[in-house]
Amino acid sequence: MYKKAIPLYVALVHYPVLNRRGETIASAITNLDLHDLARAARTYEVPACFIVTPLKDQQVLANRLLSHWCEGIGKELHSDREEALKRLRVVDSIEVAKSEIQANCGRAPAVWATSARELSGALRHRQARQWLAEATETASPCLLLLGTGWGLAPSVLDEADAVLESIRGINGYNHLSVRCAAAILMDRIIGESDHR
Amino acid sequence: MYKKAIPLYVALVHYPVLNRRGETIASAITNLDLHDLARAARTYEVPACFIVTPLKDQQVLANRLLSHWCEGIGKELHSDREEALKRLRVVDSIEVAKSEIQANCGRAPAVWATSARELSGALRHRQARQWLAEATETASPCLLLLGTGWGLAPSVLDEADAVLESIRGINGYNHLSVRCAAAILMDRIIGESDHR
Repeated sequence: MYKKAIPLYVALVHYPVLNRRGETIASAITNLDLHDLARAARTYEVPACFIVTPLKDQQVLANRLLSHWCEGIGKELHSDREEALKRLRVVDSIEVAKSEIQANCGRAPAVWATSARELSGALRHRQARQWLAEATETASPCLLLLGTGWGLAPSVLDEADAVLESIRGINGYNHLSVRCAAAILMDRIIGESDHR
Repeated sequence: MYKKAIPLYVALVHYPVLNRRGETIASAITNLDLHDLARAARTYEVPACFIVTPLKDQQVLANRLLSHWCEGIGKELHSDREEALKRLRVVDSIEVAKSEIQANCGRAPAVWATSARELSGALRHRQARQWLAEATETASPCLLLLGTGWGLAPSVLDEADAVLESIRGINGYNHLSVRCAAAILMDRIIGESDHR
């Protein structure tokens, strides 16, 4: 018996993000990000993950990779990868991701940004988990934004409905890969809860 | 003030592991596995991560990568990466990893294997967490084995002191990347516990 789907969507944002000098850039797509994110999304039944980039050549690259795994020889050899990667959607902007969710769910998503820095007023993971449990009943969607490069641009944090608390390491280190951070966040806010 | 170190060590095993046909092989090292594992290890203050491979050319490759980040230009540009990668140790076998831990801690580690499959009698993550909390007081080390390829060979599971429960996805999918699985496991068994 399938559980009721938790309406959490994820977006891996390549623009607007920061580079190491704090400038706003469009970052390059990383092949393994797409695989890891898709596999984690399938594990936790996230209905769709958006790969956000306005760069056309990067969109072509990402879509070629998706066709290989979802239609080509990759699907044949490795059907569990197709099951994961078919939930990725390459889009121009965060706005387009929001519109697609609205079209799919009948209402606009709440938008949660993430940051490796500890920000005041951040939404605790426990609160996010509770919010999503209630949202599952009312089918209110939520879009979780993950930044590549040196993180989401300040404009994205400013416009989000909330910023999630950071994943606090021991002794202040906050340089997880976005792949690992995404997996830990999904586990914390929508994973099984009986293992602590 | 630094917390008392939790004596959990991690090994990313490239031999003996299975390929897709269930044969025992030595898998190839993946650059990003090393970065992601090191960054997660630093985040959770795992004192050392062993990269296990008996293949000399693979050891040379891994060590070249480590020198770039820990001694070369990489360290200068990206010191947080050095802080992570310097805790990686390339070793020939799981036995060598155990000996190094014994030399370091004065006693042999308990060995925990992992599997993507649900095995009977598996150690629950909650139990592992409790065990490690007690082990921190007595400084009893533990070595967590993660398999690349299609997972650890049966001989490794047989010889381990325990096999950890798998990370159960929703609706039965169990194909996380080893990078993401490692991060989720560290978070579950030694991460902060106040976010549920």
